[in-house]
Amino acid sequence: MSWFGKNFIKPTLTILRTELSFALVNRKPVVPGHILVCPLRPVKRFKDLMPEEISDLFNTVQKVSNVVEKHFNGTSLTISMQDGLEAGQTVPHVHVHVLPRRAGDFEKNDTVYEVLQNHDKEDMAASEKWRSEEEMEAEANELRKYFQIEPFCR
Amino acid sequence: MSWFGKNFIKPTLTILRTELSFALVNRKPVVPGHILVCPLRPVKRFKDLMPEEISDLFNTVQKVSNVVEKHFNGTSLTISMQDGLEAGQTVPHVHVHVLPRRAGDFEKNDTVYEVLQNHDKEDMAASEKWRSEEEMEAEANELRKYFQIEPFCR
Repeated sequence: MSWFGKNFIKPTLTILRTELSFALVNRKPVVPGHILVCPLRPVKRFKDLMPEEISDLFNTVQKVSNVVEKHFNGTSLTISMQDGLEAGQTVPHVHVHVLPRRAGDFEKNDTVYEVLQNHDKEDMAASEKWRSEEEMEAEANELRKYFQIEPFCR
Repeated sequence: MSWFGKNFIKPTLTILRTELSFALVNRKPVVPGHILVCPLRPVKRFKDLMPEEISDLFNTVQKVSNVVEKHFNGTSLTISMQDGLEAGQTVPHVHVHVLPRRAGDFEKNDTVYEVLQNHDKEDMAASEKWRSEEEMEAEANELRKYFQIEPFCR
């Protein structure tokens, strides 16, 4: 079972699960392919992670990054962690945002961060803007295939 | 010897060096305590890193984060990687930005990202705005002490 803060994350919304980490699709992606990667242990701050958890978490971030950059035709990635309330964290469970990027995806390149920063707050406040579970599951199914078909990605 | 892209980084500007990574002070910090953490091997993209390099890099990020959050009286951290040109990367050497954050450090919380995104470009263009080497060395000396005094941080 995977928990993201107090939310139980269904396996159908999880695209990869490792010994110590998991990756889930986003109910309100900032760009197509916006994935969250979390430690399985629901600690709040990055400083709470053990060395093995950090290694597993960011090796998982790399695997997920490679897949979403490819699948969503990205040429770059924004990889970001809002670690603590004053950095914009709202869900008290360490999570790394992975966003495939490409030229012109935002009018101003840095807008991605502004949108990302507001992401959690809006996400909490406006559940009517969330994607349907069916849409999220369909995306997760597509992305999960990369890890099943290509064992080297595991 | 540590290289950041094509720039040789003097040991006096390095606050921590591990088997595979190093951390350096910033010539134009976005906030006080803005540190860059890099793999020693000068690869351009996150996907170019080997698992051991990822583990070392982000365990180093955690150690540096703990120190700068404490030293600069932060309560949170922004930890971010601009991985590729379209994500705002200008120096073709993987680097993780570590920024201690606190309430009210930016008028709008998300402004930190806008400033961060422009950071590299301005940094390249406007060397007259850089801090003096003496100022940077003094900061590096202060921060290096945490790692020398507290062996558990290494």
